[in-house]
Parts: sequence; C-alpha cells; structure tokens
Amino acid sequence: MCVTMQKDKKIKPSILPGFMELLPREQLAFDSMVKKIRESFELFGFSPLDTPIIEKAEILTAKSGKETERQMYRFSKGDNDLALRFDLTIPLARYVSQYFNKLTFPFKRYQIGKVYRGEKPQKGRFREFYQCDIDIIDKENLDLVNDAEILAVIYFTFKNLDLGDFQIGINNRKILVGIINLLGMEERSADILRAIDKLEKTGAKEFEKSLNGIGLNSEQIETLNNLLSMTGNSEEVVSKLKSLEIKNDLFKEGVNELEKVSKYIKFQDIPEANWKIDLKIARGLDYYTGTVYETVLSDYPDLGSVCGGGRYDNLAEFFTEKKLPGVGISIGLTRLFSQLKERGVPLEDKTTPTKFLILPLEAPLETCFSLATKVRNAGIPTEVYTKQDKLGKMLEYANRIGVPYVGIIGENELKNNSVTVKDMDSGEQNTVSFDETAEYLTRSI
Amino acid sequence: MCVTMQKDKKIKPSILPGFMELLPREQLAFDSMVKKIRESFELFGFSPLDTPIIEKAEILTAKSGKETERQMYRFSKGDNDLALRFDLTIPLARYVSQYFNKLTFPFKRYQIGKVYRGEKPQKGRFREFYQCDIDIIDKENLDLVNDAEILAVIYFTFKNLDLGDFQIGINNRKILVGIINLLGMEERSADILRAIDKLEKTGAKEFEKSLNGIGLNSEQIETLNNLLSMTGNSEEVVSKLKSLEIKNDLFKEGVNELEKVSKYIKFQDIPEANWKIDLKIARGLDYYTGTVYETVLSDYPDLGSVCGGGRYDNLAEFFTEKKLPGVGISIGLTRLFSQLKERGVPLEDKTTPTKFLILPLEAPLETCFSLATKVRNAGIPTEVYTKQDKLGKMLEYANRIGVPYVGIIGENELKNNSVTVKDMDSGEQNTVSFDETAEYLTRSI
Repeated sequence: MCVTMQKDKKIKPSILPGFMELLPREQLAFDSMVKKIRESFELFGFSPLDTPIIEKAEILTAKSGKETERQMYRFSKGDNDLALRFDLTIPLARYVSQYFNKLTFPFKRYQIGKVYRGEKPQKGRFREFYQCDIDIIDKENLDLVNDAEILAVIYFTFKNLDLGDFQIGINNRKILVGIINLLGMEERSADILRAIDKLEKTGAKEFEKSLNGIGLNSEQIETLNNLLSMTGNSEEVVSKLKSLEIKNDLFKEGVNELEKVSKYIKFQDIPEANWKIDLKIARGLDYYTGTVYETVLSDYPDLGSVCGGGRYDNLAEFFTEKKLPGVGISIGLTRLFSQLKERGVPLEDKTTPTKFLILPLEAPLETCFSLATKVRNAGIPTEVYTKQDKLGKMLEYANRIGVPYVGIIGENELKNNSVTVKDMDSGEQNTVSFDETAEYLTRSI
Repeated sequence: MCVTMQKDKKIKPSILPGFMELLPREQLAFDSMVKKIRESFELFGFSPLDTPIIEKAEILTAKSGKETERQMYRFSKGDNDLALRFDLTIPLARYVSQYFNKLTFPFKRYQIGKVYRGEKPQKGRFREFYQCDIDIIDKENLDLVNDAEILAVIYFTFKNLDLGDFQIGINNRKILVGIINLLGMEERSADILRAIDKLEKTGAKEFEKSLNGIGLNSEQIETLNNLLSMTGNSEEVVSKLKSLEIKNDLFKEGVNELEKVSKYIKFQDIPEANWKIDLKIARGLDYYTGTVYETVLSDYPDLGSVCGGGRYDNLAEFFTEKKLPGVGISIGLTRLFSQLKERGVPLEDKTTPTKFLILPLEAPLETCFSLATKVRNAGIPTEVYTKQDKLGKMLEYANRIGVPYVGIIGENELKNNSVTVKDMDSGEQNTVSFDETAEYLTRSI
C-alpha cells in the first residue's frame, strides 16, 4: 500500500508549452551555433554584456506598446513590481544611460541571452527564446561607416554559421518615409510601412489591396510600386533613385545615406552576391530611422529574415536627456534553430564533447586515468570507460555517443606502454606510445 | 514648457537590488572565467544542457522546503502557475526523468546558468546568480570511480581558473551519520550535521555549546571531536578510522567508500597538496548520501567553500520510479566573482575583445578595412578607428580600451602597402606588409 501511495505522489516531469528544451545531441549543435556567433561578434571588437533577466517593470514598460505589455511576464515580489525582459534593446538603453560616464564611446556591445514573451504558443514561436544582438552606440553622432560595419558583421557571422548561401538586404527608412510624405500620406505612414513589410509574404495583389484600404489611389500605388521594384547592383539602384528627381528632403537624405553606406560596404571586401539594396525592406518596428537590414538564407527562403536590424536616432530617450544614436541587429536564434531542425538540417552527430574514449581491455584503471590526464593536459576532451564490459559493448557505446577516437589498451599494448588509437569514422588503427598519444590526437583531430 | 515636461517624464535608469551587473572590463573577466569552467567540464566529456528558466511551479516545489518556497519567484500567467528555477538540480532531475529513454547512461551533463532566490539582499548574496553544475547520473548503480572523477574535474577547473593555490576536501556522509547513529542520536542527525557544517566558521567552543544544546553529553562530544579532528594523508586517515573498530555498518560502509574513492583519486595524478580527507565536511543539504566535497582557495580562506557537492542515492524520486544515483558539484560563480572583485583580485585590463586596432593616419578607410578583413580572416578580433583624429588622441583611445596592438598607416607605410604594428605594452614597433600582418600578429599575440 505504501508503494502505491508513493507511485501516486509522482509528479509528471514536463515543461511549459512554448519553451524549447534540447537533447544532448541538439544542445551541442545549438551551443556550436552560439559559439560561432559569439566569435564573429568578438572578431569586430564587440564586448560582451549580460544584464539581469528580471528588471523593474517601469523600465520595461517605458517604451513598450500595448501588445508587448500584454505579453510581458510581470509579477511582484515583496514591494517590487517586476518583469522579465522581452528584448535586449530596452535593457541596453537602460544600461547605457545608467553607466554613461563609465563607458567608452562608441560603445560596441553584444549580448546573447534569453528573452520572454507570453505569446500564444505556435509552431516556431517561443515564450522563452535567445536573441543575439550587437549594437554600436555613440554620443550625439554616429558615422555611417558603422552601418557598413554592421553589415560586415552579419556577413562574417553567417559565413561562420555555414548554413549555405545567404543574402543581406539593405535599405534606408528615410527613402520610404520620404516618398510616403511626398504622396501626402504621412499620417498613415506606419500602416503603409507595415504593408510594405508584408509585401514579400503576401504578394503584389494583396499589397495593392491593403494600400487601397489605407486610402492610396492607383496613381499613388504605381509611384510606390515603381520605387519598390527597382533592381540592380547598388550603384544602379542609387542612380535610378537619383534620376527620379524626387523633391523631398527626407527622401534625398535617405538616398545619400544609402549611397555612402554602400560605398563603405565595398571597403569591407564582402562578395557582391551576398548583399544588395532592397527597397522593399521596411522593418515593422517604428524606432528605426535610417539604414535597415534583413538577411535571407538562400536554401531556406521560407524562413523569412533570420537577422534584421537598423539604425535609430536616439536609443535611450526615456531614460536620459543625452542623444544616443545607434545601429544594431538581432538574430532570433531559438526560432532559427528550431526551424532548421524541423527541416532536417544536419545537426551534430554526437551526444558528448568527448574526442577520445579510453577502453581498458586488459589495462588497470590506474593506467587508463594516467593516460587520460596526459591527453586532457593537451586540451583534448577525454573519458575512460570504467565499466567492465566486452570490447564489442564498449565500441557500441562509443558509437552511440559519437566519439571520434577510441584508445584500446589490451595485453600487448600494456606491455609496451602503448594504446591502439582507432578512428571511429574510417576504422583506421595505429598503436602509439602513451607519451605520444596526446600529440598524435592533436594532429588527427 | 514642452521641454520641461519631457524632462519630468524620464525614468531613472536602475536595476533591482540583489542583481549583479558588470562594466565591460568586469564582464570580460567574468566571461573568461565562464569559458575556463566550460572548457574544464568539457575536457571530462560532460555535455552542455540548457533548461528553461521558468518551470511549472509544481515541478520546483516537488522537493523544496519552506524556506526555498518563500524565496521562490512564483507567479501566474494565464492559467499557468509558474516559478523561476532556484537551482539547477531540480531541473536536472525533471529532465532526466522526462527524457529517460532518449539519454545514454551514465549521463554526464554540465549546466552554467542563472538561478533565482528572493533572499534579503546583503553583501555577497544575490537574487539572480550563476551556478556552474556538473553531475554524473546512472541507472540503479553508479561506480565510486565517478566520485574520484568529479574531484579530478574540480582540480582541473580551479587549476584553469588560476586563482592561486586551492585545496579540495573530501568526506563521506555515511561516516558522520554512522557515528551519530552509534551515539544513539539519529533523531537529531540533521541538527548535528548542521553544527559540524558550521564548526570551521564558529570554532570549537561554539560547536561544543551547540552539541550540548542538541543534547549530547561530554563523552559523546569527545567521541565526535576525536573523529572530526583526525588528520594525515588519506591512507593515514583511513587507517585511523579503521583502527577505531566502530561497530556500525553505515560507518564501515562510509570508511570503505572513502578508501576506494581515495585510491581512485590517486589514479588521477592530482598533486597530494591539492586534496585531503576532511572529516569535518558535512554539507548542509540533506540529499547527499555518500561522498561530499568542498573546495577552499588558499589565498582567500574567508570565502569558505567555493565549490561543493556530493553523491546522492536517488536524484529524481519525485518524478520517476527509476532509481537514479548521481554525483555532482556546483560553483556559485556570481558570488565567487563578486567576492574576488571586492578583494581586488586583478581583473582583465581591457574593455574590449579587440586585439588589433588600425589607426588610419594617412590611409583611406578602404585600405584600413581591407587590412582589417585580412586580419579578421585569421581569427584575430580587429577594429578600425574611423573618426578623424590626431595620432595622440587615437593612441589615448587605444590605451583606454586596452587593446594590445595598434597598426599605424602613415604616408610611408601607405606607399609600401605596409603598417607599423605597435605593441602597446612594450612600445616595440615593427613595420610589416599588409599581406604579412595577420601572420605577424598570430605569432605575437
């Protein structure tokens, strides 16, 4: 009876819907992506930042809209009104304002961390997800050369991630807002930008219908369509934009900025095939004020943009009088990873970081551990198989965890202070002395 | 008037008390510690794990006591009763039970992540802090060789962290519980263990007083004191323990286990000076059932144990019928870091990961960016100084961010497609061709 009662008491182990949790094999693949992203960001001199996941609610609600507040995880503890961060941008704005006098500008930081949004869980949407952000913030003015550098970071990052071909699109919001103003539709600017944002997904027909709904006549729609459909390399698009001779200062400013940024991008040795001006890029968020970016994986165009961002005039206006212009991007890594996983993109084929597994056939554990220490001292992740099993079972285990090399110490090897190192992929075997094992593996791995 | 209103609207940028947030220089030091810990864990084949920070409240309250529940950040969202994890052990227990059939055992995982406890904030205590955990879990039985491996991981980790000399203490709870049972005090076992736990801090007098309070007479206290004060190397302590000829099965089992684990530790080539048997180690938590560990930094003994852990018979009894013995340790990194910082332990002397900063004296930006790309392609974090300033101001900036090498491209250098690389520490300068810069820096850094 007592046993039955205990059985009844078990709590079913489960997690909340909308949260991603991975098996070891998947986690290794995920962590390897994080590592590549981090290394790419650091290659451009961005410093790491780690802000609290819990912030004062008043900080997070300073700039958020109604939808964001609805999704926010907000609660109290003692007298404190708390909330979990829903992006990494507001915490950055708070951080830069708070430590303004202690930071060196331009302040270049990256942050890879979890954010929280209580959305309705659906495929590809998560309530807890990683964002990988970089931003460059300066005081008063931030040179356009930084907009080009951000694009170079995107290029290096996706080259390192090795997810096949990709294309980075760049635009300038001033061009879009300028033409909207010219059309006399500034009051519906946000709606029109949102419609442009959806154009790629919904198609031309749906786009025209929604513009119609907003109140644009067919002439206005044609003007807009002519602009958005411009193609060519960056020089060609810029010269087409100039030839329109549009008399709107914001528009002209946007074209000039786009021209400059394009020139600076060329300094960065980025292949022409990997970036282009795409005037259809609008970015939904309204805090972007200049350059905007989107990135599409050529092999998975249906994922949409996997890395977006842009320039904003004033990062922290809710926290400080200081004008802090910035430019940055964000990768929604949890979503990207889960979508790649779904599409069967090859993941790591191992469940362990171990590179070398020692199988003690005839060797005492002492010998095996001593060899393991030697190999670990060379920085190679190493384990000893400590259960007493037959070689077949040991090799089966090695295969299951996906370790690339095993070291077999049988009677003969033991006599000669040596180990037979087997490459688990090729099957190749070589007998190596204990003293030379670390060097042999360093060369092989 | 409008300006005044806006001024009034600013929200003071600040974080909640009890949360750690770092300046870039400190963050780089912190991240460098995380990296060393991660690499040490992976060197022994532990796989990374990342569980959600928010769990179902029923999962987290399955095993927790009243004090833990009081500290828990618990809240609801929609119909869900949620809480933030307060350690990484309960999530591990839940994970292993949930994915039991998909995991390979022994399951060796590490997890470095934030946990939350709404404690009263005080010096060195945080409400959000990092724990760095490793555990080895097996089905039914877990060989004692794993207890020795855990000690080897502690040794490697603190050697890599390079915080000066350190000593790992090891004990077996069965020895303490055995002697308590022998004294007929099993009902006050938890209280006596807690008193032993505090002995090192409070001293012998206070210890005896509290034992007295618990109800031990002077003879019983003497027996306990004789045991706890045993010293010597591991063989000596084990032989002293055996010579007591104590007739208690649990005690004998503990001594035998300690003897075996000590023998296995010797296989791991750990210097004698870095570990010892310390019978005074009790560990407050009651779920430890065998081996227990503590680690003390010799230069900062007042920090107490900076890495503790032990063996437990059954990890996940609240979630599954399966018996899952394990052994593991935890480093409370946020606390350790903040205490070292307070004591002025040298931190990183830079605010950026950048290793090479290009200063364009006479060179066009195009040339500088092209060189930057070459150097980045060799994996060296590189930046270009893009503002138009005098050399003095540029070098001042380089010093402020703590970059180790700058590359100056003046008129002469430009003519020869070369750059003068200056070591900012030694002041040494060498002029190198653009094509050889990456190689030159790779050799120098």
